[in-house]
Amino acid sequence: MSFMSDEILEQPDIVARLAADPAPYRAAVAGAKAAGVRFVLYAARGTSDNAAVYGKYLATIHAGLPAGLAVPSSATVYDTPIDLRECLVVGISQSGETPDVAEYVAHARRAGAHTIAVTNDDDSLLARQADTVLATHAGRERAVAATKTYTSQLAVLALFWAAWCDDDRLLGALRGDLPEAMRAALSLDAEIAEVAQWLRFSERLLVSARGYNFATALEAALKLKETSYIAAMPYSAADLMHGPIAIVEPGYPALLFSISGRTLPAMRQLEHDLLARGAELVVVEDRGETADGGDDVGVGISGVDGASSLDERRQRGGGSAGAAQRVNGARRRGLLVPRITPEPVSPLVAIVPGQLLALHLAEARGFDPDKPRGLNKVTRTL
Amino acid sequence: MSFMSDEILEQPDIVARLAADPAPYRAAVAGAKAAGVRFVLYAARGTSDNAAVYGKYLATIHAGLPAGLAVPSSATVYDTPIDLRECLVVGISQSGETPDVAEYVAHARRAGAHTIAVTNDDDSLLARQADTVLATHAGRERAVAATKTYTSQLAVLALFWAAWCDDDRLLGALRGDLPEAMRAALSLDAEIAEVAQWLRFSERLLVSARGYNFATALEAALKLKETSYIAAMPYSAADLMHGPIAIVEPGYPALLFSISGRTLPAMRQLEHDLLARGAELVVVEDRGETADGGDDVGVGISGVDGASSLDERRQRGGGSAGAAQRVNGARRRGLLVPRITPEPVSPLVAIVPGQLLALHLAEARGFDPDKPRGLNKVTRTL
Repeated sequence: MSFMSDEILEQPDIVARLAADPAPYRAAVAGAKAAGVRFVLYAARGTSDNAAVYGKYLATIHAGLPAGLAVPSSATVYDTPIDLRECLVVGISQSGETPDVAEYVAHARRAGAHTIAVTNDDDSLLARQADTVLATHAGRERAVAATKTYTSQLAVLALFWAAWCDDDRLLGALRGDLPEAMRAALSLDAEIAEVAQWLRFSERLLVSARGYNFATALEAALKLKETSYIAAMPYSAADLMHGPIAIVEPGYPALLFSISGRTLPAMRQLEHDLLARGAELVVVEDRGETADGGDDVGVGISGVDGASSLDERRQRGGGSAGAAQRVNGARRRGLLVPRITPEPVSPLVAIVPGQLLALHLAEARGFDPDKPRGLNKVTRTL
Repeated sequence: MSFMSDEILEQPDIVARLAADPAPYRAAVAGAKAAGVRFVLYAARGTSDNAAVYGKYLATIHAGLPAGLAVPSSATVYDTPIDLRECLVVGISQSGETPDVAEYVAHARRAGAHTIAVTNDDDSLLARQADTVLATHAGRERAVAATKTYTSQLAVLALFWAAWCDDDRLLGALRGDLPEAMRAALSLDAEIAEVAQWLRFSERLLVSARGYNFATALEAALKLKETSYIAAMPYSAADLMHGPIAIVEPGYPALLFSISGRTLPAMRQLEHDLLARGAELVVVEDRGETADGGDDVGVGISGVDGASSLDERRQRGGGSAGAAQRVNGARRRGLLVPRITPEPVSPLVAIVPGQLLALHLAEARGFDPDKPRGLNKVTRTL
């Protein structure tokens, strides 16, 4: 066991505790609405920056507010006078000690923004700069690679935007189905250890998702790089199709998050295009269907034994001939997580297989996941 | 010769023509100011998205307006009602036919935004959706990998924000020194062909910059992936230090854009840390100095012959013993471009060596830079 492994396992209980008390989010929303917020900016680094991407999608898609990621260097390096009236600035940092995030939030508050700190330490530098603190209450994080603080940041952001929108359905899913769905995802552990063996000697990995789970692709890629030193390249499916897909040649490995919701057709198209190029896929998915709508082929882990390509399994399982031709010997390994609705909750479940893969790949490659080379818990950005 | 090569060479004349007539930008600024713009969102894909990152830094740092990158899927996939009053939405697309960018701009206009299209075709789908069109006038782009339209997009954005800020110094640099500085960068062609030989068998490459040139890192990495299929991973220097630097082991290749301005100390720190990990660096720089302030060591291309590491050259050229110890056999190849001020102009010069490297690396690896596998000029994002 490692700290990272322990902390991955703690996640269902942490998000359950966070969701049990919606009062802090209601209060934070009341403060932000009183400030007349119409635009949202997030400031963060590293793992927290991936949570910020999730927060940007929530603000934009769920709450209908224009939102973006701040340029922290505008405050810390360029010292720009900026008009942030009617802006909500959300600083996110596990430790609360990332200096440029804290400095940006302080700068933003002076520039007229309403500010919220999302941090695991409610007495940190960041917490002291903000109008409101939303603590992630994840307990001390001892692993260098952040896992439980990432999902607790997502939970806090989802709870905040659920409160903003008075969305009882979203709140209900966070309080109700989420912890159990995360536990089910954790039970993929042994299957993911096999996937790690398969990836063991790869130096590169494409990682892709779209919509709310774009953050999942970013975070899974970051974890894989931090613990396993694999060149994991994350893309929105839309951007991947717009150029970088050119790098894919037969045998190129890719990790896709193909999760139910509005962006699923785009993910299925991407899967189809990658298989046509001969890519080898690991697909985190939340249903028993293949890319072309066939049922229950490619679910669960498979293909590791070298004898069950999607092609072959289709012949056994009844896929169409056209589909079989299309995938022509390419491999596709499915990792099935429970489907959870509404869609904004799914990134809290979908990231779990990504975290487990980073953990197992580190171990398979002979690295200590708790001691990534040259990584510190708090990065002091210049 | 290839289309890509021809179009890289056309760039100085194109930006000179664009900068010669500031009238369209003044008119566009007048329209946006009349609309009461206080918040800026860019919508783009691929190369144009990298131009959008540059535009975000200009709006934030130069004009002091909060700015971000839009979530096009909020319109095209999620169909979110969104309040975009007092927002400027800038859609950027070479062809003007990227459907989700055009659809996002149309959606934004209906939602109250003031909209501008930056496109190479002023009669395109995108152009027809926007309140104002700023044409990039780069002539037909025949290469699949965009080069001249990228720099012409940067020029249009710089001219727009120069007009917004009544910044005659920025306007003057765009009209005055820029074309000549780009020509000087083009003269690095033979040196870059040697760098391409050195990179020829590498499957991966870290690419980094910070501040205005973060866009340069993104675009150089994209070009390298599109034409040469190398796993080029772009990072802001700040984010790289916050985790992904863990992947760097001795011999890992990295391309840095270490350009004068406020972010130079951060780039020097990054260079120092990468050399300490044994990385092999290509540094696009605009001065005759090394990372620790020594003068004229490491300028120009060097180290290709295998006998002139920075270490050894320091012994010949008079570097300090401490510095020599630190780099301990690691390689550093400098590519010197002219220094140009003010800082926002530098990305138009710094990208040129990145484009040339993508061109030469494609050729060195036996690919046709005009025919990237499976890339189309217009991508129809689902």
